Amino acid sequence: MLDKLNWRYAVKKMDPTRSVPEEKVEKILEAIRFAPTSSGVQPFEVFVVTNPALREKIREASFGQPQITEGSHLLVFAAWDNYTAERIDAVLEQTQKARGASETLAAYYERLKGMYLPRTEEVNHDHAARQAYIAFGFALAAAAELEVDSTPMEGFDPAKVDEILGLREKGLRSVTLLPLGVRAEEGDWLQGMAKVRKPADELFTVIA
Amino acid sequence: MLDKLNWRYAVKKMDPTRSVPEEKVEKILEAIRFAPTSSGVQPFEVFVVTNPALREKIREASFGQPQITEGSHLLVFAAWDNYTAERIDAVLEQTQKARGASETLAAYYERLKGMYLPRTEEVNHDHAARQAYIAFGFALAAAAELEVDSTPMEGFDPAKVDEILGLREKGLRSVTLLPLGVRAEEGDWLQGMAKVRKPADELFTVIA
Repeated sequence: MLDKLNWRYAVKKMDPTRSVPEEKVEKILEAIRFAPTSSGVQPFEVFVVTNPALREKIREASFGQPQITEGSHLLVFAAWDNYTAERIDAVLEQTQKARGASETLAAYYERLKGMYLPRTEEVNHDHAARQAYIAFGFALAAAAELEVDSTPMEGFDPAKVDEILGLREKGLRSVTLLPLGVRAEEGDWLQGMAKVRKPADELFTVIA
Repeated sequence: MLDKLNWRYAVKKMDPTRSVPEEKVEKILEAIRFAPTSSGVQPFEVFVVTNPALREKIREASFGQPQITEGSHLLVFAAWDNYTAERIDAVLEQTQKARGASETLAAYYERLKGMYLPRTEEVNHDHAARQAYIAFGFALAAAAELEVDSTPMEGFDPAKVDEILGLREKGLRSVTLLPLGVRAEEGDWLQGMAKVRKPADELFTVIA
């Protein structure tokens, strides 16, 4: 992805006649699946929406941003609403299956429950959302590496998107959107504009 | 990075006699700098700590995790404590310098101030932290691509790390740590263990 940092940008207009090949979408999903998360919990799900009617509704809940329907795939990142004993136990069980059971492992996830379960739902959801953002970063980096256009989006009404996709019933809350598609050759005001980033000396401080 | 998803893991023991080459660290910082953020605000800074005494103190504030001192570089991601008019105006100014001034641009950042400034400090810091997590994801992906070992860490006392680095005076709060180094050949209990990830059908739902 390092040689594509300048290639990628938040595409403002996608070509609705072109689609991202499924094998590239699969690779982006693998990057999401392999992204690291706190204690390996992976406290989120991703919805891959291609259905036109649903994307039309989501677009309406997102200030009409056209990439949602003009891209070929819409990824909706949804973080857990809360940590629960059941959810943490499922992670322990999965880890035991892959690595074998041990007292250390079981004790680790017991301590994790002791830490997470007394916290408020808001604190836990926020923590889960941050893990989803790591995976969101991986998805953006993977898309760039594959020269797949994408538009990271926070500008939408999460409550409406939750309702459209029935997320709250699943214990989830939408946190970010990522339309994938092919940049239109014309009509994108941002295309070709200078990339704006702070200079390194404003962002980084070396303490040697 | 896609061919390194399985290569990377959260290294538990690094070789203190080996260092990550500076040119690779620079590339990881470039990935952080080019990571997308909401409205291009980049509401965070990253501290690159190599100083042994400071890293020793940070290690003490991080449950003694040895990678902090046994790696060669420690990245500390610190998000803005709050959004302010001054901070947003600086982003507008920088964008105008790169792309030229326009009423649309100025109006955009005025609206952004209208949205951010009335919110509580906690809401704004949390939003800034999420942007830092996208860059954190980019750093992890870049490190993997370069075969640089790293250990994503949330297990530390942010108030203590803030104090050690004087972050609050700079309007910043530490959110994650990322030691960079070279995995030790022996003594890492996690090395060689099966990678544990949820199967794709638990994480992803396709809605066609």
